[in-house]
Amino acid sequence: MAREMVDARGMRAWRQLLRAHAHVTRLLEAELDAAHHLPLAFYDVLVQLSEAPGHQLRMSELAHKVLLSRSGLTRLVDRMEREGLVERRSCPSDARGTLATLTDAGFSRLRDASGTHLRGVARHVLSHFTPEEQDIIAELLGRLGDPEIAPAVH
Amino acid sequence: MAREMVDARGMRAWRQLLRAHAHVTRLLEAELDAAHHLPLAFYDVLVQLSEAPGHQLRMSELAHKVLLSRSGLTRLVDRMEREGLVERRSCPSDARGTLATLTDAGFSRLRDASGTHLRGVARHVLSHFTPEEQDIIAELLGRLGDPEIAPAVH
Repeated sequence: MAREMVDARGMRAWRQLLRAHAHVTRLLEAELDAAHHLPLAFYDVLVQLSEAPGHQLRMSELAHKVLLSRSGLTRLVDRMEREGLVERRSCPSDARGTLATLTDAGFSRLRDASGTHLRGVARHVLSHFTPEEQDIIAELLGRLGDPEIAPAVH
Repeated sequence: MAREMVDARGMRAWRQLLRAHAHVTRLLEAELDAAHHLPLAFYDVLVQLSEAPGHQLRMSELAHKVLLSRSGLTRLVDRMEREGLVERRSCPSDARGTLATLTDAGFSRLRDASGTHLRGVARHVLSHFTPEEQDIIAELLGRLGDPEIAPAVH
C-alpha cells in the first residue's frame, strides 16, 4: 500500500492538520449559525467582497479566493443572492464576465457577524498559541497553499 | 468588528491553515477521482473501517472518526452501500445500534486507491517538511483537535 513513503510521524502530522481543521470549522460554523443564521461559506464570501475594491469581484476571482470550484461558487452565490446579500452585475470591461457585488444588506450582515466569528477564531484557534508559534504555523503551512492565492489580512 | 482580538499575525496563521487545507484536499481529491473515481470522503470511511476490529464500527463511532454529522454520514454510507463498498448490519449488543461493515469489494477498492492517496500525501504535504517540522506541526495543531478523537496511525 505504498506505506513506506508516509511513515507514522508524517501521518500523524497530516491527520492532526485534518482534525484541527474539521474541529475548528465545525465550532465556528455552529457559533455563526446559532448567533446569526449564517453559514461559514456565506461569511467567507462576504469577507472577500468587503475587502475588494468597490466591494466587487469577478466570479472567477471570487471562486479562487474562497477556494471553491466555479460551479460550487455559482450555487453559493445563487443562495446568497436570494437572501439579498450579494448581486450579480455584468462586467463593464468584459462582455462575458460577471461581477459579484456586496449589497448594503450583505455588508450589514457581515458587520453583525464578524464579532462572533473573530471571537471564535481567537478562542478556538489563536488562544492556543503564542505569537511566535502563530508565525511558525503561518510559515510552515504557507508552504502548502496555492502560491497564486495571497492570504488577505483583516 | 472586534478586530482587536485577532491581530494581523494571528489572522495570517489562521488563513494559512485554511488555505493549506483547501489546496491540499483539492489536489488529493482530484488525484483519487482521476485514478480511481473515488471521492476523498469514501476513502476516509474505507480507511477507518479497515483499521477497526472486525472491519466494522457503529455508525455513531464512524461519524465521529470521519468528522461528519450523523446525518451527513448516513447520506455518505447510503451512497457507499449502493456501490457495494460497505454494508449496514444490526448491532448484536444493542438493538437500536447499526454497524457499518467494510465489504471485500470495499477493502479491495481501498487497497487499489491507497497508493495514489499516500503518494499524494507524501508529495503535496510531507515533502515540504523535515521530520522535525512534521513533529512541530503535529504538536501545535494537536492542540486544536477534538480531544476525544485520537488520530489513527497508518
